[in-house]
Amino acid sequence: MINMDERIKQQLDFCLEIDKEKNIFRQTHLSGHGRNENDAEHAWHMSIMAYLLREYSNEKIDIARVMLMCLIHDIVEIDAGDTYAYDEEGLKTQKAREDAAKERIFSILPDDQKSELIAVFDEFEENLTPEAKYAHAMDNLQPLILNNSNGGSDWREHGVSAHTVYGRQGKTRLGSEKLYEVSDQILKENIRKGNLPE
Amino acid sequence: MINMDERIKQQLDFCLEIDKEKNIFRQTHLSGHGRNENDAEHAWHMSIMAYLLREYSNEKIDIARVMLMCLIHDIVEIDAGDTYAYDEEGLKTQKAREDAAKERIFSILPDDQKSELIAVFDEFEENLTPEAKYAHAMDNLQPLILNNSNGGSDWREHGVSAHTVYGRQGKTRLGSEKLYEVSDQILKENIRKGNLPE
Repeated sequence: MINMDERIKQQLDFCLEIDKEKNIFRQTHLSGHGRNENDAEHAWHMSIMAYLLREYSNEKIDIARVMLMCLIHDIVEIDAGDTYAYDEEGLKTQKAREDAAKERIFSILPDDQKSELIAVFDEFEENLTPEAKYAHAMDNLQPLILNNSNGGSDWREHGVSAHTVYGRQGKTRLGSEKLYEVSDQILKENIRKGNLPE
Repeated sequence: MINMDERIKQQLDFCLEIDKEKNIFRQTHLSGHGRNENDAEHAWHMSIMAYLLREYSNEKIDIARVMLMCLIHDIVEIDAGDTYAYDEEGLKTQKAREDAAKERIFSILPDDQKSELIAVFDEFEENLTPEAKYAHAMDNLQPLILNNSNGGSDWREHGVSAHTVYGRQGKTRLGSEKLYEVSDQILKENIRKGNLPE
């Protein structure tokens, strides 16, 4: 592009780069026994859910920061790919793959915005602030409602047990006791129906 | 779902309903000459761009409201379908189709949140506030950068002329003079290359 100042060129280059996140597919399927969901759709869905369910956060949160965190939390998967929550081998190398991706992708931005977005990304990963804990609750609840709507087909496809799923739900509890209770009800109902082996 | 209070049930029902937006495909194609983009991906992309480019808004804006506006602005298309920006016949019935959809879909929420989201949705449509004007700039700029990256293939496919595209860019100018300038540069470059007939 001609005659464009360097800052806005970097910003637009980044905006174009993240378009690739729409090609990173997850293990979760869309409702109505649809196709696999991609990361961009997942992030969009989480961000709206974060806004609508914010009254259930355990702690007071800056909702704009949570929404941004939800929107960008999977950007590194453009390079690193999606690692399924219950893929033990993939989880071993996930951190190194994602660190390299984080450096490459956020470096497309002007330095101040690179630092700002990496801080938001790292905050999510470290999961220590009220915003990060609540965003993690969304990261769990969003695929749970899809999978529940599909009769638990994603769990069955991967042979995931209730024990494993409950391990992950601990993160929901850190962000929202209320949404943990609701998730627990949904999981119990799926165990009862035989959708999720105990 | 059993033992769930009515409010959270309505909220989760809405969260599940909007999953359908991932099946509403637009005329825009993903970068790298990819497949058609869907509304959820478009909204995700717009919302991140809104955050990163907020310094270029003509007026001071509440960025959280802009991001929410971007995220939900196409929800009515779950029922009403996508109307291409340059489809003159579709545009005639668009308002009636979208009004019916708005009432059905947002009514799934508890009354207070139904009112809140309809207010945000209507604000976008009316395009009078600084937030709405800036969100409209994103609604134009996001497909423009994709289409530009694909050598203008979406314009050529639909036989759209520069005159028509420039008509739409007026909305960008209301939200951001700077992003209008940049869009103008991108369009001129595409006209020069023969990607967009004059």
